[in-house]
Amino acid sequence: MTDQPTQRPALAGLRVLEIGHFVAAPFCTRLLGDLGADIIKVEPLGGDPVRKWGEQVNGRSLWWSVHGRNKRSIALDLKAQESREIILKLVAACDVVVENFRPGQLERMGFGDAALRAVRPDLIITHISGYGQTGPYRDRAAFGVIGEAVGGLRHLTNHPPGTYGLPPVRVGVSIGDSIAGLYAAFGTLAALWQRDRAGGDGAGRSLDVALTESVLSMMEAMLPEFGKLGKIKQPTGGGIATAAPSNAYPTQDGGFVLIAANSEPLFARLAVLLGQPGLTQNVRFADNPARVAHAIELDAIIAEWTRTLTSAELEMRLNAADIPNSKAYTAADVAQDPQFRFRDMVRDVEDPLIGKVLHAGIVPHIPDAPGTIRWTGPDIGEHGDEILSELAGYEPGRIAGLREAGVLA
Amino acid sequence: MTDQPTQRPALAGLRVLEIGHFVAAPFCTRLLGDLGADIIKVEPLGGDPVRKWGEQVNGRSLWWSVHGRNKRSIALDLKAQESREIILKLVAACDVVVENFRPGQLERMGFGDAALRAVRPDLIITHISGYGQTGPYRDRAAFGVIGEAVGGLRHLTNHPPGTYGLPPVRVGVSIGDSIAGLYAAFGTLAALWQRDRAGGDGAGRSLDVALTESVLSMMEAMLPEFGKLGKIKQPTGGGIATAAPSNAYPTQDGGFVLIAANSEPLFARLAVLLGQPGLTQNVRFADNPARVAHAIELDAIIAEWTRTLTSAELEMRLNAADIPNSKAYTAADVAQDPQFRFRDMVRDVEDPLIGKVLHAGIVPHIPDAPGTIRWTGPDIGEHGDEILSELAGYEPGRIAGLREAGVLA
Repeated sequence: MTDQPTQRPALAGLRVLEIGHFVAAPFCTRLLGDLGADIIKVEPLGGDPVRKWGEQVNGRSLWWSVHGRNKRSIALDLKAQESREIILKLVAACDVVVENFRPGQLERMGFGDAALRAVRPDLIITHISGYGQTGPYRDRAAFGVIGEAVGGLRHLTNHPPGTYGLPPVRVGVSIGDSIAGLYAAFGTLAALWQRDRAGGDGAGRSLDVALTESVLSMMEAMLPEFGKLGKIKQPTGGGIATAAPSNAYPTQDGGFVLIAANSEPLFARLAVLLGQPGLTQNVRFADNPARVAHAIELDAIIAEWTRTLTSAELEMRLNAADIPNSKAYTAADVAQDPQFRFRDMVRDVEDPLIGKVLHAGIVPHIPDAPGTIRWTGPDIGEHGDEILSELAGYEPGRIAGLREAGVLA
Repeated sequence: MTDQPTQRPALAGLRVLEIGHFVAAPFCTRLLGDLGADIIKVEPLGGDPVRKWGEQVNGRSLWWSVHGRNKRSIALDLKAQESREIILKLVAACDVVVENFRPGQLERMGFGDAALRAVRPDLIITHISGYGQTGPYRDRAAFGVIGEAVGGLRHLTNHPPGTYGLPPVRVGVSIGDSIAGLYAAFGTLAALWQRDRAGGDGAGRSLDVALTESVLSMMEAMLPEFGKLGKIKQPTGGGIATAAPSNAYPTQDGGFVLIAANSEPLFARLAVLLGQPGLTQNVRFADNPARVAHAIELDAIIAEWTRTLTSAELEMRLNAADIPNSKAYTAADVAQDPQFRFRDMVRDVEDPLIGKVLHAGIVPHIPDAPGTIRWTGPDIGEHGDEILSELAGYEPGRIAGLREAGVLA
């Protein structure tokens, strides 16, 4: 798919200062940068610690190639007096500051909301934290896995109570951090819209995004059903509490295929595929409530069959029987998926630090004004000179002095 | 916590038409409505099918109380000729249309992008679908669980390969739909900002949000690590592939406590709690990459300690050492959590249809301009008269005629 842009990217003209680290704040600014915003990332001299996470090539993080894309990096000794002046000059040149230090830490460093607004009165300030900027838990350390647990997500990622007795699993990525970062991006733009639109108020706003709350907000009927009926939502494994069979089943080649055959005609066709057409007459599987009540037994029967076939063979047979199915995609499946490739959601990108790298594309897709991957995650402090020159008005000699003094990397 | 608003809600003045159903589009508009937008929801005469999902009270869905809050409902027979005129009049009065029909279906009903822009040239049109509006899979049915599987999420919600042989679990909520809805809200505001800001282009934009892609965009280093190293990201159960120690650990009283001590200072404090401060000097645990490489060994050392303590004792000691920790909250834990209550993230709301209901609060929190729950999910077509009068300029007699003709519920 080749976009033919007729409009500028949606966030062209927006400038954002990120004083963040790890996942949530940098993910927020990645999203803003993907849609065209100019992202200035302030890092400590040693760089954002996330640069050391995951697999490295040439001493460079592959994750960082994606996580840091479209950002300009300036690396500063944040404790140096000169850094304070630099940061305030950068703030004055930005629409937004996004940060995810512990609540109050930025203020202790002299960058509280009031100090920032003194140099940029209409600044949008987006705070991201584990539990929020207020309340009895505000000072608690919180990482993504904690926020996911407190938000109610972790309890649900498990097999049903009384089945295997295993602990609930992690989603596999920092889903809570990423959801918080996405909420932060959403809220930041809401505040910007009210500030900048005709009829808006031109005012800065401060946002207080909590990881725990971002997760909780996705929990659907969990709270109303508990409050009204005392019902405590429980995990349902690979299945759905009210429908069977619907689960992920193992394949001969080590993957899993999702099969949703929880209507009478679908189940009858599946029973034929299993070579056990009589299952539909078995009282334990004769209708959906019976199948739900005996789901473990039924899933075991289905799994016995799916284990004898490869994903491809299963997909062919299930499609021929018109039974909804899909394998659980691995990285390899995603990378070669024709739909993702067609839509440029899986793309080869040239990274000057590590060579050709596979990136996920840009969400949301805006056909007439597509976001772009302008560059991959930069080196630590790679844009220090141009940022200081362009946004702070520093002369080359002064910049060189800062570098000699160890203030600037 | 009592907010004292000094600014209007961030999306006050924004009007959005939702022609959606189930989860993704209605979740998008819930988020916009929470921050103050006027949401006009067009429903079929029988209402959005999601109204029948989950537990019911008085024949009303508890989920709907949250999912439909802050929205105005108009119920129409979409096949009637009069409905076409009504919808176009509503479009003309709105900034945004959000829809999640199958790709092309709205166009077949006469509401393609061009037809909508004929009455509102600067309209933002937000399409949400399973696979996107283009490409070889665009016509495939869009089930949430399938989208999560194709985006790479389902494969990862499991114990490591070669351990229990169980299928990967569902997250427990329609996480893919909700993430797609959140991306849609984010992208909608990006388009609005560029349209409405001084120096913006005043132009409408169309967005193409895919559930599969929204999930994929959160997969972190999965693609670059596969593309560069051929590494296929695998599930890690309760742990994290890139950080250690971080896992769910067994307690003396048979539960599990999450501990995230995967930074140098946190690990040092945990090592003291373990009574083994020398662990930080051990080359196998000296930094995060080393700890990741020896995570199983490290987790066993930690578990040996946690098994000697109850959940309550563990929580007390870990909090005293300022080490992130938590049990996996259930609905009951969430409902009574003092932090959520303090921040009004768990709140009692009066629903005229079903009485007092527990709602999750509003994310993001904007202290000076807080979003509000102005009302709970309305009855089918509850606001039909006022919408037709206010936005379409229809007289009461004409509205009554539409109702008699069965066009309006």
